Amino acid sequence: MKAPRFELLARDGAARRARLRLAHGTVETPAFMPVGTRGAVRGLGPGELYDLGTELLLGNALHLLLRPGPEVLEKHGGLHAFMGWDGPLLTDSGGFQLFSLASACRPTTPEGVEFRSPLDGARLFLTPESMLEWQERMGVDIAMVLDECIAWPATQERARAAARRTLDWAARSLRARRAGAATAVFGIVQGGTHTALRTACARALADLEFDGYAVGGLSVGEPRALMLEMLEVSLRELPGTRPRYLMGVGTPTELLEAVRCGVDLFDCVLPTRNARNGQLYTSAGVLRLRNAVHRESLLPPDPECACPVCRTHSRAYLHHLQRSGELLSARLNSLHNLYYYQKLMRGLRAAISTGRLEQHTATLYAGWERGTLC
Amino acid sequence: MKAPRFELLARDGAARRARLRLAHGTVETPAFMPVGTRGAVRGLGPGELYDLGTELLLGNALHLLLRPGPEVLEKHGGLHAFMGWDGPLLTDSGGFQLFSLASACRPTTPEGVEFRSPLDGARLFLTPESMLEWQERMGVDIAMVLDECIAWPATQERARAAARRTLDWAARSLRARRAGAATAVFGIVQGGTHTALRTACARALADLEFDGYAVGGLSVGEPRALMLEMLEVSLRELPGTRPRYLMGVGTPTELLEAVRCGVDLFDCVLPTRNARNGQLYTSAGVLRLRNAVHRESLLPPDPECACPVCRTHSRAYLHHLQRSGELLSARLNSLHNLYYYQKLMRGLRAAISTGRLEQHTATLYAGWERGTLC
Repeated sequence: MKAPRFELLARDGAARRARLRLAHGTVETPAFMPVGTRGAVRGLGPGELYDLGTELLLGNALHLLLRPGPEVLEKHGGLHAFMGWDGPLLTDSGGFQLFSLASACRPTTPEGVEFRSPLDGARLFLTPESMLEWQERMGVDIAMVLDECIAWPATQERARAAARRTLDWAARSLRARRAGAATAVFGIVQGGTHTALRTACARALADLEFDGYAVGGLSVGEPRALMLEMLEVSLRELPGTRPRYLMGVGTPTELLEAVRCGVDLFDCVLPTRNARNGQLYTSAGVLRLRNAVHRESLLPPDPECACPVCRTHSRAYLHHLQRSGELLSARLNSLHNLYYYQKLMRGLRAAISTGRLEQHTATLYAGWERGTLC
Repeated sequence: MKAPRFELLARDGAARRARLRLAHGTVETPAFMPVGTRGAVRGLGPGELYDLGTELLLGNALHLLLRPGPEVLEKHGGLHAFMGWDGPLLTDSGGFQLFSLASACRPTTPEGVEFRSPLDGARLFLTPESMLEWQERMGVDIAMVLDECIAWPATQERARAAARRTLDWAARSLRARRAGAATAVFGIVQGGTHTALRTACARALADLEFDGYAVGGLSVGEPRALMLEMLEVSLRELPGTRPRYLMGVGTPTELLEAVRCGVDLFDCVLPTRNARNGQLYTSAGVLRLRNAVHRESLLPPDPECACPVCRTHSRAYLHHLQRSGELLSARLNSLHNLYYYQKLMRGLRAAISTGRLEQHTATLYAGWERGTLC
């Protein structure tokens, strides 16, 4: 296995500007990954994602195992060809879906976890080894280890058991790597909101030779200050020479704060989910398209934005589409929000490169605080 | 008012190849208009529609009157700016929605029709004059007169009353035209499936100075042979020097047959509606994406198609998106179907120009008959 090259280009405080070379291309970090759980980002095709500045996409190994399944993906020669995306791909293992969702008291053994397919009721037994092998077979650039992600709040006992299992599974995942596979493997720090557990988990993972490290189990309901505290606790123990990925986070302000803590990679459903609800992220805070105040507005959603939506459409038109339940509404709103996220990351990369992150942070907040904070 | 120039370029049998110059551009005919009832085509933006070869789009004057309403459209300077589409636009008056839909026994007087907004219960009284004025104010290239469209089957008495009212309203619409307006006005032939009524209605309309003529009230449930018979009866009486538009029709075979009868313009929701149901139009007939036979297929939807979807995606991927209920499914399927319709029209135009329409017709049927006829 050839480790991906992670090249640190600049620092500004704890923030890092770096370049991650993967099997299918290079990712400039800090970077944001749009979410394509089932091999598709909501309403956007691969060419459009590329045009928005996307360099890395996220899929979900568990979802793709259930449907379309291994035969179909192998016939296509992997997930890239199946999706029509030839840039870098990362898959989450499905730990979050297995453990933290509503129906999630799974029969778990030290060996793995039993799971019944919601699609056809088929019973599956998933192990760290089988989920790593599946991700390698899909040919993704980055595979995440199978972890045990717990709900918040959790007792120390529960959090400790999950962190211990996550560590054990992480070590087994590394041993299961196929020699020569082009897929990088990232470990995941768990430990709930317990400082000692986070520290111990991160330290133990750091001793293993992962290509990168993720911080998982955050932004699951805990207050934002606690989330950032647990993030810092986790990052402190991780090697500075490897990429760091904060899973499932977050809003623009959360991304900004996490970048300032030294996070390199992000994914989140918010830009596309909120797009469907008519919430746009802008340089002047959140714009709620359904509000009657936009009914006759000729302004573009964000006068400071150069995205295809802002260059073409008025708030009144987008308000009309949202109120009319037009399919085009979700699409245009998603295009804008994902463009906004990519622009935010570009701005952060440039600010770190030139040592102007504090100044840039103040400018971003000054804008957002003109309206509802993003 | 400056009449649009309609230039006949070639004939092949009854079929016509022509060029229609409108206020916002030129339309090569026979042409197909995608349907953007409320100012948006399902899931596709204006730039994409243009890229697919669209030269004329359809909106609905009644829907747009209810929402967003006159103030919003006037603030934008008309429907073009509101939609972000600067090419030719045609609006239907809403006669079909007023009269032929389920709840459609409207209180109608010789003067006009009373209508209660389904959005806010507001009571509106619509007249041929007010609907023409509204379309002119929106700045569309072609306005349709307010007509009375009846359900099928209808008694001769009912059909006669509707045709008579349609004729009366057509004459009033012409008198209501604003001097100097750039909006062309089309009359609509009604008469149900009664030959004598159709003939009389078309003949009377032909005596009025319309910029073009539509055949309405067809494809509302009657057998296809009867539809084509009524179409021919209607067309026979219309002046050959003006464009002819068959409203709300149809499948690829119906378009082909109607072109052979001498129709120049079409609109229909089928390519986008069937896209959402997973039905793709192809050179080998209808492809039903949900069928299990496509689960592992690496073939593009239509191996003879050069659209962005067929160049990038397999049937298996589109099957997966459809089964997963992904937003991207409707979008990709719509892109393909609208591309297919525009390609069909391009092929028909070329065949008429070169006098090869019969040969081309045979080729199209031979392809479609390999599968389920389109």
